[in-house]
Order: sequence, then structure tokens, then C-alpha cells
Amino acid sequence: MATTGARSATRSTKQRPAPKPQTEPRPDRRRVRTRAALIAAAQRILAEDARAEVSIKEITDAADVGFGSFYNHFDTKAELFSAAIEDVFERQGALIDAVTTELDDPAEVYIVGFRLTGRLSRVYPRLARLLVNTGLAYVTADVGLAPRALSDLRAAVAAGRLSVDDPDAAQAAVGGALLGLLQYLDVRPDVDAAQATDDLAVSLLRMLGMTRRQAESVVARPLPDIPAPVNG
Amino acid sequence: MATTGARSATRSTKQRPAPKPQTEPRPDRRRVRTRAALIAAAQRILAEDARAEVSIKEITDAADVGFGSFYNHFDTKAELFSAAIEDVFERQGALIDAVTTELDDPAEVYIVGFRLTGRLSRVYPRLARLLVNTGLAYVTADVGLAPRALSDLRAAVAAGRLSVDDPDAAQAAVGGALLGLLQYLDVRPDVDAAQATDDLAVSLLRMLGMTRRQAESVVARPLPDIPAPVNG
Repeated sequence: MATTGARSATRSTKQRPAPKPQTEPRPDRRRVRTRAALIAAAQRILAEDARAEVSIKEITDAADVGFGSFYNHFDTKAELFSAAIEDVFERQGALIDAVTTELDDPAEVYIVGFRLTGRLSRVYPRLARLLVNTGLAYVTADVGLAPRALSDLRAAVAAGRLSVDDPDAAQAAVGGALLGLLQYLDVRPDVDAAQATDDLAVSLLRMLGMTRRQAESVVARPLPDIPAPVNG
Repeated sequence: MATTGARSATRSTKQRPAPKPQTEPRPDRRRVRTRAALIAAAQRILAEDARAEVSIKEITDAADVGFGSFYNHFDTKAELFSAAIEDVFERQGALIDAVTTELDDPAEVYIVGFRLTGRLSRVYPRLARLLVNTGLAYVTADVGLAPRALSDLRAAVAAGRLSVDDPDAAQAAVGGALLGLLQYLDVRPDVDAAQATDDLAVSLLRMLGMTRRQAESVVARPLPDIPAPVNG
């Protein structure tokens, strides 16, 4: 397979870059790599320290890129940090989208995202800490998890599965509750995160109009398989 | 009353400081004032900017105190910021304690704190923003609002008014939901904060085991009067 010829060349860029200098010249690929390294370094830093009092030099060192290259991508540290946070929320949102496409019940679609994100605290603790450190401003954001969750909540309400007067306020509260849970699980490594997350999921579905029996039935369904790890 | 003699002198320090140079000499009073000015400046800064990328010089300028006096009180900026945040949470907690002492229903005691804190967003928007910017790490703290709310929740559960398997996890979630609500109210100045807060209070009481009718009855009770403004 590694020695196949021209027919599969367009997809075999992993080991041997396709020779297409005009559509994707080498400097641009390096540019993409540098940006990704800066974003990843910022994510590591934000996961460790909510205030992230580091210099740009420390960031470029952590990213293993030249100091000057920072300004090819970002004007300020704040701009990099915003991009790093949005990247995490977008990845998690895209992951949830991917694993819920097969589900028929909009209430289940809504709560599966919650159940998967609560479980991050044990699987990707650094990612969970980044969400806790930065996430509250994003419960009302129009990118990442929040708009997806809001749209899922509206769909569940429209289908008569959930009931809430103000979906925007309810979603901000549920997002905050999820972050509160992640903070709790971070300081309590002894707690069973899956159990605590599912218990809270049942409570929140009851808050959103379900009976206890209905809520427990939705949360008892097996979670979809996760296809690929997000960056943790 | 202002001219009463020795009998009430021990409590009449408000207008005329008692002449006790040995227990509280003048330099110590200045020291207290300086610390309070630094705390207040840090609170203003934290309300405006979650990352608070300011220098110690900028903080002492904002506090109108000498640069060198900073180190008489705090070793680092982080130490000042922690003290500033804890001060806010302690004040709000003490306020809630003060206005709920007369209440008989422990479920009402619990939810009154929530209802008053949600209303902060319109009365003291800067204080509310400080809570949003810094509060998530404090939903599991052992100072300030969190331990009081947890103790109130346990009392309501013990009295059979609320029902929850894991009060710690539930309180972290309710604290997060409150912060999510404050974030929502901050970006949506058009929303009736009292109404949105009370709607969420009803939802959370249902999540904590009440029927809708019970929850609405508790939240329909008038809020206690607030004796004195907290610093906003």
C-alpha cells in the first residue's frame, strides 16, 4: 500500500507529501503547522493556569517555534488564547455532532453531548480543566458547543420531548452546571465521573420538563462510540 | 444617641473613634485602609478583565497607594487577586446569612441566596461580572458562598424539603448554573433579570426534588429586604 502509484497519490499525503507546489506550497504547510503548534501550546498553558501569565517568548518556546513567527499568526496573546479556546470548543462540538447523527430522539441528542463532556474530566483531564478555566464566557457564545447545544435543545422542545420557557437562559444554566460539575470532578478524583455526570443529566432533564422515569430512560441508553480522540 | 456617655462607648466607634492607641494605633488603621484600597482596585480590575493582565504598578495607581506598600500586604498579584475574590464571595455570603436568619423553611433559605445573587447582574453589574470571570473555581471552595449554600442545601435535604443523592455534586452544578445565568444576563441586558432568575430557581428546585407547584410556591414568596449595599 505504501508503494501504490499515481492512482492513490492524492490521498497518500501522510507518509509522502503529494508534489503539488501550486495548490499547497511548502511555506503554507509550515505556516499551518506553526499555527497549530501555537494553538496547542496555548491550550496546554490555559489548562494549567486560568490567568495564563506567560510571555509570548514562553509560548513560542513551548510551541517550539521561532519568537518572530508568533506575529505571523496573532497580533496579541489574547487573540491566540481566544483561538485556542474556540478550537477546543469546536472540536468537542464537532465530535458530538459526529456521534449523534444516527440518534432519533432529540432529547437524547441533547443530553449525549452533556454526558460525553462530563466524562472528559477522567479521559482528558487537561482538556476538562481548560473548559473550567475558560468556559463560562462561552456558554453564551455563537461558536463551539453552545450554539450546537442550544439548537439541539430547541429541536427537543419543538418535538415536545423537553419543555422550557426561555431556551437561551436554560442553556446558559445547563452549560454553567456542566462546568460546575467539571470543577467538582477535578477537585474530587475519587468520584465516579460517569455516574455523577449521568445523575446530573437525569436531574437536568427533569428540570427541562421530563419525569424522573422518562429522564432515567433516556440517560440509561448506551453512549455512542467515540471515533477518534480529541486533543487532551 | 450620639452624645451618650461611657456606657455605650464601646459600640459608638462609628462617628467618633474610641481613643485606644494601644490596641489600634494610627499606622495600623492606615494599613487597613491601604489593604482595602488594593482589594477594591483588584476587584474593579477583575470585573473588567478575566485575565487581568496588569502590572503591580497599575494596581497601586488604581488603588491610589504607593507602589512599595503593595508588598506590605501581598507577595504576588495572584495573592491579591485571590484575596479580592474571596472578599466578594464572603461579603455576598454574609449578606445572604444576614437576611435569611428569620426564615423557617430551609428550602427557602437555600433558594433566597440564589435569587438574590441572580439579581446582582442588574444592581451591581461589575460585581456580577467579577463572579462570572472568577467564580467557577469557587463553586467547590470552602470559603464564601459555596460552603454556606452547601450547608443550606444539606439542611433542606435533612428537613425533607429537598432531595438529592450527592449534595456536593448538586451544589457545584447549581453554582455553575447560577454563574451561567449571570453570564447570560450580562450579554442580554434586555432580559428581566429577576424573572429569569426566579424561573431558573423554580427549575432548580424541581431538579432538587420539588414538584412544580411546590417550587413555584417557595419562589413566589417575597425576598427579604437587603439592609446595606455590598460593594459593586
